[in-house]
Amino acid sequence: MSSSTITLTTDFGLADHFVGAMKGVIRTIAPAARIVDISHQITPFETLEAAFVIAQAWPYFPKKTVHVVVVDPGVGTARRPILIEAGGHYFVGPDNGVLSMIYDHHRHKARHLTQVRYFLPEVSRTFHGRDVFAPVAAHLARGVPPARFGKRIEDHLRLDVCVPVRSGRRAWTGTVLKADRFGNLITNFHVADFPDVRSRPIALLAGVKRVERVVESYVDGAVGEPVLIVGSSGYLEVAANQGSASKLLGCGAGAPLELTIY
Amino acid sequence: MSSSTITLTTDFGLADHFVGAMKGVIRTIAPAARIVDISHQITPFETLEAAFVIAQAWPYFPKKTVHVVVVDPGVGTARRPILIEAGGHYFVGPDNGVLSMIYDHHRHKARHLTQVRYFLPEVSRTFHGRDVFAPVAAHLARGVPPARFGKRIEDHLRLDVCVPVRSGRRAWTGTVLKADRFGNLITNFHVADFPDVRSRPIALLAGVKRVERVVESYVDGAVGEPVLIVGSSGYLEVAANQGSASKLLGCGAGAPLELTIY
Amino acid sequence: MSSSTITLTTDFGLADHFVGAMKGVIRTIAPAARIVDISHQITPFETLEAAFVIAQAWPYFPKKTVHVVVVDPGVGTARRPILIEAGGHYFVGPDNGVLSMIYDHHRHKARHLTQVRYFLPEVSRTFHGRDVFAPVAAHLARGVPPARFGKRIEDHLRLDVCVPVRSGRRAWTGTVLKADRFGNLITNFHVADFPDVRSRPIALLAGVKRVERVVESYVDGAVGEPVLIVGSSGYLEVAANQGSASKLLGCGAGAPLELTIY
Repeated sequence: MSSSTITLTTDFGLADHFVGAMKGVIRTIAPAARIVDISHQITPFETLEAAFVIAQAWPYFPKKTVHVVVVDPGVGTARRPILIEAGGHYFVGPDNGVLSMIYDHHRHKARHLTQVRYFLPEVSRTFHGRDVFAPVAAHLARGVPPARFGKRIEDHLRLDVCVPVRSGRRAWTGTVLKADRFGNLITNFHVADFPDVRSRPIALLAGVKRVERVVESYVDGAVGEPVLIVGSSGYLEVAANQGSASKLLGCGAGAPLELTIY
Repeated sequence: MSSSTITLTTDFGLADHFVGAMKGVIRTIAPAARIVDISHQITPFETLEAAFVIAQAWPYFPKKTVHVVVVDPGVGTARRPILIEAGGHYFVGPDNGVLSMIYDHHRHKARHLTQVRYFLPEVSRTFHGRDVFAPVAAHLARGVPPARFGKRIEDHLRLDVCVPVRSGRRAWTGTVLKADRFGNLITNFHVADFPDVRSRPIALLAGVKRVERVVESYVDGAVGEPVLIVGSSGYLEVAANQGSASKLLGCGAGAPLELTIY
Repeated sequence: MSSSTITLTTDFGLADHFVGAMKGVIRTIAPAARIVDISHQITPFETLEAAFVIAQAWPYFPKKTVHVVVVDPGVGTARRPILIEAGGHYFVGPDNGVLSMIYDHHRHKARHLTQVRYFLPEVSRTFHGRDVFAPVAAHLARGVPPARFGKRIEDHLRLDVCVPVRSGRRAWTGTVLKADRFGNLITNFHVADFPDVRSRPIALLAGVKRVERVVESYVDGAVGEPVLIVGSSGYLEVAANQGSASKLLGCGAGAPLELTIY
């Protein structure tokens, strides 16, 4: 019997004690669980960035993995802690959109986490990652059934940002979801929704630059040349061979884009 | 039977091979131990910052956890490697104050680590994290009794910094222990020692600003307004809703504070 | 029976989903394996830096550990994925030199990873860390014999950089391999090749400074004084007591050096 996995995605950074305290709570409640960090360097308070990062990572984990996502500017307020079941995985986090890329794209059940017996005995107003989400995740990993944590809800926060909008006969307006470590600009045009980007001529207006060349591998571009590529997550990316497209084009997360498919 | 836990707190950063080498040593000696990183981004040589970070994290771990704390500007000199037993946990590190927030606040036993059979066969003068502290922690995690590692000592380094000092009938001088990832200024006024901060009017002079408003949650402050809050570790903090109090007030770790309780 | 270990060394950083996705793949295929991060903060595309970092860490791990090293500017091109067996350990990564400090210094066998049954079902052109190297490592950790992954090769990329060159009767030209977290400059003069650095007067010309004083511990230097020390990896380092030799001398990785032994 293999041990279950708990992943962590937060904006807590790695310098403070925050992540360590969460892991201590998990080790205490679920000593056999394996803890995997996805990222603790989400830009502070950027719920959509967290939503994107967990959405790219979770499908590679085994079923029954518990994913904890804590980017939580409203900690201590009335915003609800929630549990999502989707695709055979569990997701816990605040009801503020951090889990929206899970429940906007997958059949799911949502619950409001209300059963305080699964929280730490004392719940602070400022650190629910440690006091609510880590212990709930640990109890889930130990096999407590989801229904025990709280009642089903249907009115969890849905966001419809991040979806390209048609702006002309052959044109769509989109946005940069994220600039990654290498400066690749990940757009919200997904190949599943825009299969033509692989087969037809296209142009992407990003910042002041119009990018038209679609390549298969990063090295197919000249050094310093912005190119288009369908990235490893299926999103159209603007990349630059061994350089930063983000710097070349002077844009990052949230920048508007216009895609034309000819 | 669950496997034991070893936590690591260092100023080694995450870019070099240092932490990886320590973990290799632990994996070799104690293959069943679970290794948890608390932080490797302690400011280089800042022993008090390390003391604070481990003090906030360790209580959340299960009994018998071994905590390794290596911020060690005196590595290779006569400063002693020590083992502290407190609260059912083990702590290993240099005798330079990194463990002082453990042994200043808890009944404890201290030992001088002298039994070289528990070190790596070759001990460098520059990397005791790998050659002394990691192997000692791994042997502890395997169940070697503390008494085997060296004799009891009583003269380990005690520090009395970090304690507020009375400066008037209603006033105390304190200091900023740390600015966290979000720019919250964690002061050394702990609610256990200053319970009145929850119930009476107070004022904190920090940098050029006088902060008087005490809130319960970060979002209770206006954006850009410095507020006071009892944080998740029990220390009075200066915070700013979705902003950095550290930037607003222009101060960080070590900055002097004056607290008045009316 | 203890579980096997997989280490990861990449230039993926810790902010994106890349490392998390690799760990998900490993957890799925080899749930009992222990995953240890060596570094994910290799400078993007710097294969030699990765080569150095893994070379310093791997000897401390137990036999049969699988080391994954992915710094891969040529991902998606014809460069081969390879498997190296050396010293009782396994190493997987691209055939671009990242593993050269293993196979230039140790008896080894090299194989070309061609058996796609050990890759993910769909292999992207941009993320072989997730699609090729992580699954191969996980299958190795589960006990699949190396010969199953592909045929032996002899023409894997050998690099002869990083070796000091004689430039005079008593002089050698070398280079800075890396500046570490503390600003110590790690040179390519190893005490195994230059045992005289411990016993004879030496001088190292680094940037504009000539450094002659050899010390045993970092604190033996005056604050702000650059000194020479044989570091914990056996390489001659330029260090500064509680300061950054890199800043003092204005040089970093790749800087030329001249060593004179009198």
